[in-house]
Amino acid sequence: MATLRSVSDHPNDAVPSASPPASQTDYMADDQYREAVVDLLGALAYGELTAFERLADDATFAPTIADKAALARMAVAEYHHFELLRDRLKELGAAPELAMEPFTEALHSFHERTAPGDWLEGLVKAYVGDGIAEDFYREVSAYVDTSTRALVLQVLEDTGHSQFAVDRVLAAITEDPRLAGRLALWGRRLVGEALSQAQRVAAERDALSTLLVGGVDRPGADLAEVGRMFARLTENHTRRMSALGLTS
Amino acid sequence: MATLRSVSDHPNDAVPSASPPASQTDYMADDQYREAVVDLLGALAYGELTAFERLADDATFAPTIADKAALARMAVAEYHHFELLRDRLKELGAAPELAMEPFTEALHSFHERTAPGDWLEGLVKAYVGDGIAEDFYREVSAYVDTSTRALVLQVLEDTGHSQFAVDRVLAAITEDPRLAGRLALWGRRLVGEALSQAQRVAAERDALSTLLVGGVDRPGADLAEVGRMFARLTENHTRRMSALGLTS
Repeated sequence: MATLRSVSDHPNDAVPSASPPASQTDYMADDQYREAVVDLLGALAYGELTAFERLADDATFAPTIADKAALARMAVAEYHHFELLRDRLKELGAAPELAMEPFTEALHSFHERTAPGDWLEGLVKAYVGDGIAEDFYREVSAYVDTSTRALVLQVLEDTGHSQFAVDRVLAAITEDPRLAGRLALWGRRLVGEALSQAQRVAAERDALSTLLVGGVDRPGADLAEVGRMFARLTENHTRRMSALGLTS
Repeated sequence: MATLRSVSDHPNDAVPSASPPASQTDYMADDQYREAVVDLLGALAYGELTAFERLADDATFAPTIADKAALARMAVAEYHHFELLRDRLKELGAAPELAMEPFTEALHSFHERTAPGDWLEGLVKAYVGDGIAEDFYREVSAYVDTSTRALVLQVLEDTGHSQFAVDRVLAAITEDPRLAGRLALWGRRLVGEALSQAQRVAAERDALSTLLVGGVDRPGADLAEVGRMFARLTENHTRRMSALGLTS
């Protein structure tokens, strides 16, 4: 994996979030950094576009018109996030479609392997799957310039689907406790598939990986920090599963 | 059918579009008229919500990221139309979900019976199916107060999918002329299913039917005008099929 190789090439002991690049303009002159940011925004943009599709698709499963309209509203919010990312890619002089292209296969594979079988599986996927992806992007955002970070944090803002999913899943489990076993298994499968696709992307996209672990003149995370990051991701995942009334 | 019964109850020879109700306020005092407008807006609102779902679903079939993003944009436009209709229903003191409820089954049946098998069938459905529905609503809008009519015409505005569908379908047929036969058959099936569901709605919703054919104190279309309306709908359908390079 590019991640580990780069760590040993450029060891760095600085606390990473304390020393992110100062400004977008300075850092965009560095071709490798610019490429990494285009990768990051491209991955996020395609993620938002597929989140739009998936929420819209979940809407077709919705048991009531009100739930359908609520999911459609969240899907629309994801689309507007996609637009922000697409516009920023254009500002950076990148072709949005080319920037998204490297991530289509991994995201497509993930969604194909985790197509929800019903309304509740769709909700758990939206909450648990998107939750882990959002945490990861939030961690990465500590290593980019302030302007890129502001955009990333903006598009990661919860569009309301977390509380919606928690409410609906908790209510369903309260009514039929036997659901908990199946949905807990589903949650574990989602994480497994997400990690396997993330690993694939990390191995293929060197520029993106060096965002996290640093470049020649840029600080990144050391191995211990990468370890702590994974611990945080796991903790948050466990917390989300508990919020749904599920064991992780 | 309620339509024909009402025509014979309240014959009216006025040219209908020349004498629509004067203002929303006057006419909303008439319970039957208000009920009819709530039906009309409810049917349209649920139509927009399902159009959103369907375009988002078509986006998953899109052969390129650019096409996917274009369809997502159109789906979002339909959702915003849904919001306008929902808000007007609330202004009229109607519960949007109750207003939409009577039309869910007919729309669901229509979409279930006409689930596109591929990208091109989805495009033909969006253009030909929505086209005939839009023409019908535009005809009905001649019989409502100016404020309701303005809203109906606003939400019927083309979100850009017509030209998009024509371009893509024509290009596909030029490349593989054998597609024309299958897609023409598909177009005929869409119209057949649309008419059958429309008939079902007309039979069940007396208030909505009397919008077209008039009420005790309100002019509507006479039988000859209803005939001319169907002629116009058919002509427009033929024109749309030709635009796609298909025989109707």
